[in-house]
Amino acid sequence: MTLTLTPLPGIPMVRAGDDLAELLRVAALAARLTLQDGDILVVAQKVVSKAEGRLVNLRQVTPSARALELAEITRKDPRLVEVILGESREVLRTRPGVIIVEHRLGFVCASAGVDHSNIGVDVTDLDNWVLLLPEDPDASARRLRRRLEAATGATLGVAIIDSHGRAWRNGTVGVTIGLAGVPGVQDLRGKPDLFDFDLQITQVGVADELAAAASLVMGQAREGTPVVHVRGFPYPLRDGALGELLRPKHEDMFR
Amino acid sequence: MTLTLTPLPGIPMVRAGDDLAELLRVAALAARLTLQDGDILVVAQKVVSKAEGRLVNLRQVTPSARALELAEITRKDPRLVEVILGESREVLRTRPGVIIVEHRLGFVCASAGVDHSNIGVDVTDLDNWVLLLPEDPDASARRLRRRLEAATGATLGVAIIDSHGRAWRNGTVGVTIGLAGVPGVQDLRGKPDLFDFDLQITQVGVADELAAAASLVMGQAREGTPVVHVRGFPYPLRDGALGELLRPKHEDMFR
Repeated sequence: MTLTLTPLPGIPMVRAGDDLAELLRVAALAARLTLQDGDILVVAQKVVSKAEGRLVNLRQVTPSARALELAEITRKDPRLVEVILGESREVLRTRPGVIIVEHRLGFVCASAGVDHSNIGVDVTDLDNWVLLLPEDPDASARRLRRRLEAATGATLGVAIIDSHGRAWRNGTVGVTIGLAGVPGVQDLRGKPDLFDFDLQITQVGVADELAAAASLVMGQAREGTPVVHVRGFPYPLRDGALGELLRPKHEDMFR
Repeated sequence: MTLTLTPLPGIPMVRAGDDLAELLRVAALAARLTLQDGDILVVAQKVVSKAEGRLVNLRQVTPSARALELAEITRKDPRLVEVILGESREVLRTRPGVIIVEHRLGFVCASAGVDHSNIGVDVTDLDNWVLLLPEDPDASARRLRRRLEAATGATLGVAIIDSHGRAWRNGTVGVTIGLAGVPGVQDLRGKPDLFDFDLQITQVGVADELAAAASLVMGQAREGTPVVHVRGFPYPLRDGALGELLRPKHEDMFR
């Protein structure tokens, strides 16, 4: 079966309080895509965060002593570092220009996903606004899914994605940060191969493979096409969650 | 533009010396896919390795003292560990059931990609045969590309992929181990966003996003559909190589 990924054009600049589910529904209609059972919408975190009003103005942030110290090492704005610390459980690595943390949501990423590009708020001091990740991306995905399913009558999946750097390899790739109706990890443990050996690979990060695929067609200036319609996802839809994709710290050999 | 990924059915069990390019060409024809400029074929490493005869029989392997020592820790067959060491530059982590190495090709992965599932050699002692990764996957990809371009007259890309575990996150994902005609990393450094900020994300691992997408449609029993046809790759094809995707050890904060 063919997997197709179609970016939805025509998503307007999203602002706090916007009805994102309705924007997605209209954009799918405009692209002449009738949402069908098994279809998935993959949404860039940035538009979810904007709709949820996850903006912070750095003028209202007072850096702590710890933020000042890390700002010195990383050569970042101490107020930005303070915001990053507020979104983090633990700082894993620092070097000039780089701060890698365990985000409060449990994944490892740079700058806790705090971003100041493409924010587009209507203010004169654009430099001072930063955007945080959604408060609870699984919950955001569930809300979008519920609304879209109610509007279409179809059984759908929703994935919220971001781009993360990786250990060992160059280049960011799309990864999932919130899921509804999409499996996170597909467990193939014990499934025999063609010759009745057990597969050595036991679990596949299918939601992250989906995120990477969608990220590829979004491109990088996510504001233009922050939503991708996916048809032909090869696994049954079920209730998944970000937590499936997170390796517990005590099982992680590379922190 | 829509990205479509279509697994090619009908690839037979591949054996050493098989003409893989011809098998791919015939499978694409059988799937009624006329290869066009810009199309990419993504190929699972296993069929490339088999065609190249990268099989080793463990009966012919004598474990070294180092292999015996690591076999004790990892509870693996010492002969298998010896083969893994022969394919590795460095052992990074060991624990029962797990050996993580820097492969001689430069990437970090489990067991140096040495595999004994789905090998399907016609021998009575199936347990003793293991399959190594291709000797030089970039070169393998270039050979396949040259043959397919000559046969079709189209400008094509070829990516050879494997499934790797990751730091921090559960589940394997498809990653590229060999490239021809496909960019590895797309450098977006300095490209302004919609509001003239520099993007904080500078480089995208587009070949790995492609690999993850293709891996999703291959499923896990790769023998069945080890080749995926991709149309609509959103970046210009150019000569890429695995090396673009490999972070030099001295720049890697997570080894």
